[in-house]
Amino acid sequence: MTEPTKILLDEDEIPTHWYNVIADLPEPPPPVLHPGTHEPVGPDDLAPLFPMDLIMQEVSGDRFIEIPEEVREVYRIWRPSPLYRAHRLEKALGTPAKIYYKYEGVSPAGSHKPNTAVPQAFYNAKAGVKRLTTETGAGQWGSALSFACAQFGLQCEVWQVAASFQQKPYRRSMIEAWGATIHSSPSELTEAGRAILAQDPDSPGSLGIAISEAVEAAVQDEDTKYALGSVLNHVLLHQTVIGEEALKQFAKVDATPDVIVGCTGGGSNFAGLFFPFLREKLAGKMDPRIVAVEPSACPSLTKGEYRYDFGDTAGMTPLVKMHTLGHDFVPEPIHAGGLRYHGMAPLISHMYELGLFEATAINQTECFDQAVRFARSEGIIPAPEPTHAIAQTVREAMACKESGEEKVILTALCGHGHFDMAAYDAYFRGELTDFEYPEEKVREAMARVPVIAG
Amino acid sequence: MTEPTKILLDEDEIPTHWYNVIADLPEPPPPVLHPGTHEPVGPDDLAPLFPMDLIMQEVSGDRFIEIPEEVREVYRIWRPSPLYRAHRLEKALGTPAKIYYKYEGVSPAGSHKPNTAVPQAFYNAKAGVKRLTTETGAGQWGSALSFACAQFGLQCEVWQVAASFQQKPYRRSMIEAWGATIHSSPSELTEAGRAILAQDPDSPGSLGIAISEAVEAAVQDEDTKYALGSVLNHVLLHQTVIGEEALKQFAKVDATPDVIVGCTGGGSNFAGLFFPFLREKLAGKMDPRIVAVEPSACPSLTKGEYRYDFGDTAGMTPLVKMHTLGHDFVPEPIHAGGLRYHGMAPLISHMYELGLFEATAINQTECFDQAVRFARSEGIIPAPEPTHAIAQTVREAMACKESGEEKVILTALCGHGHFDMAAYDAYFRGELTDFEYPEEKVREAMARVPVIAG
Repeated sequence: MTEPTKILLDEDEIPTHWYNVIADLPEPPPPVLHPGTHEPVGPDDLAPLFPMDLIMQEVSGDRFIEIPEEVREVYRIWRPSPLYRAHRLEKALGTPAKIYYKYEGVSPAGSHKPNTAVPQAFYNAKAGVKRLTTETGAGQWGSALSFACAQFGLQCEVWQVAASFQQKPYRRSMIEAWGATIHSSPSELTEAGRAILAQDPDSPGSLGIAISEAVEAAVQDEDTKYALGSVLNHVLLHQTVIGEEALKQFAKVDATPDVIVGCTGGGSNFAGLFFPFLREKLAGKMDPRIVAVEPSACPSLTKGEYRYDFGDTAGMTPLVKMHTLGHDFVPEPIHAGGLRYHGMAPLISHMYELGLFEATAINQTECFDQAVRFARSEGIIPAPEPTHAIAQTVREAMACKESGEEKVILTALCGHGHFDMAAYDAYFRGELTDFEYPEEKVREAMARVPVIAG
Repeated sequence: MTEPTKILLDEDEIPTHWYNVIADLPEPPPPVLHPGTHEPVGPDDLAPLFPMDLIMQEVSGDRFIEIPEEVREVYRIWRPSPLYRAHRLEKALGTPAKIYYKYEGVSPAGSHKPNTAVPQAFYNAKAGVKRLTTETGAGQWGSALSFACAQFGLQCEVWQVAASFQQKPYRRSMIEAWGATIHSSPSELTEAGRAILAQDPDSPGSLGIAISEAVEAAVQDEDTKYALGSVLNHVLLHQTVIGEEALKQFAKVDATPDVIVGCTGGGSNFAGLFFPFLREKLAGKMDPRIVAVEPSACPSLTKGEYRYDFGDTAGMTPLVKMHTLGHDFVPEPIHAGGLRYHGMAPLISHMYELGLFEATAINQTECFDQAVRFARSEGIIPAPEPTHAIAQTVREAMACKESGEEKVILTALCGHGHFDMAAYDAYFRGELTDFEYPEEKVREAMARVPVIAG
């Protein structure tokens, strides 16, 4: 093997700028609407929740946005992340394809989430904010934000969905190790939480409820703001460090991808990987096919409608135009908790409508079949979310075996599975359930989505 | 900060040779004795358990032993491992000391154990062995060996101490994800296991019992051999990739350590770190103080007697001269499971007698105090074992703060704590117990150690 297993960059090759794909789109994304007036929201509407630096990034049309030195300094803990050449998986598959994966599990929290948690904590600290609130499901985002807050001396308060708080105690422990406070949601600490508990003292909670609690806590205190781990433009922007590094790494081995595959929940990992490559594609420098992979149980891109809907279950957020299964649609309990979101990032949804990438959906048994093959060949045990990207990568590689094509495939391994081993247990016990598209449930949820012109 | 956070090497800088410190010692270590005859054992005595390549490494006097290309090829998955400059910890401590740590948590199993699991699996596969058996406590070693066996197409069978098998299910899941078979020990599969279960059907097991089961299974089948994760000379040898890389990394920043600190259980991580630096020290090229740190609850080096004893609780292994608390001494249940061993590697023990390093013991509350400080500054959550090294490193750095000395301190962060978060939970709940030296228990155990001349 002449090509190294890991294509590495030096710390001084950490990108100096994030890439804002909006600057290169043929038309801008539709506006975000106020939930009451249905009028476009402006920066001031968002000021109670986010510091102005992040709001300006949210609405920016600049092609590149400089990464502050203080953020790059923290990125150095784990960035640049390695681009692996999957020599061993290729051999196990017997494929002529060349498979590369960008591995984000090297971050302290074990996923790509710190790429945005760190700048979010930085800009809040810079604005004099003392405390950040957020929600978390399985705990990936909550742990990333608590790590980032520790770096900038911010307090951090996390509302974790009660079911996960009980079932997955080790992400909770990780959040506490980094100094954050964590609450089971619904909690007695907020009106939103108390209202739910009054109805159902044993409520298992939901991401929607946890968002409501975190937002309520943030707006009540002027030194406190709120942070979100996916969906928003500025979150997708921060994740472009992934693709920018991968471009440099491909240049080192003098290759370009023919296919780019990423898993999509809210869309931030997929966006971070492919936006920089799309820029090069639009500039005529390469021509990769780009494929989003979502779970069959929660197929917002492949089955959802493209229309205005709420970002949260309770309907408290602004209205955004996106592919949605209905804001109160509750996905089946697949193990890829990070992909159980009713909608897709508005920017990703807009780009899907523009035909800039394709999408597919895969069931979790196929994902775990391939995850185990991956773990036994490549050595790294993937988190449940990127098993979707791995399964599609294997499909592409097997098509190459059929056709004899030596395609270059790039995918993202956005996190390790060290906190998800219960999912592997269920797989080995034969207890994984595949869920088909829940057509009836989605129809019901969509009937509750407000009808907005545009 | 002009010096990078991570001092990295390219894959072609992975060491080509392991370093055998025996070649540079003023006198050779005492012989290993047959448990029946008390005569020195020869290579043939070990042949039922290990392939001849490993036996020859066990008894070799060669200064350098070449690392096979097939082993280096697997090392590429995570090696060279980063040497971190602990800028953030230094700042948190306000110390003028320069702290460096070699981080082995980047391996697929999350610790230094794969450094020896991979060559052990390779040499067994090369010798035509089909299956390896081993024991594991908390699961670090079992997971490392199952990963390594998957790389070379070997079957792997692990006996895990029953208490851990029940309490820490995720290391077990990891072992299964890599394709190994795992049994709770004592098991019905071996005579040793059945004998224990006949006496106590609810036996929680012990490392000693698990060793007996794994050894029994290995000797019964000619295609099967046994693997051990610490203590033996060839295991320590394989771990020297850690120190060899660190030497190259220090050369890159034009520094040499004034103090080297490592935690010791069986001794393999400490040996891997300091043997190459000791070679340079003996050659007059540097003069670091070298400090081993063990838990106060299991202080074999600082409190144990240097004499012949068994390596296992049941007294089935050869007799080795080492620092021991008595082969049936059962340490208190501290969270650093990897340091709960009654003895110390014979080679390390011999070198301690030669005055080549010093040793100290620290209680676990101080270790976790410093581990949390480390996690909040450096970002990485340490496994319980290296928290001992971190606590001593902080003591050294605070002494520098007192004296104003800008000492260079090198330590090893031999694994992450992703599978040990229950220990952090106990710490935050105030439920960690500090155990003082159990003088009476050790005296009783030592009374059962056979008296051997020499």
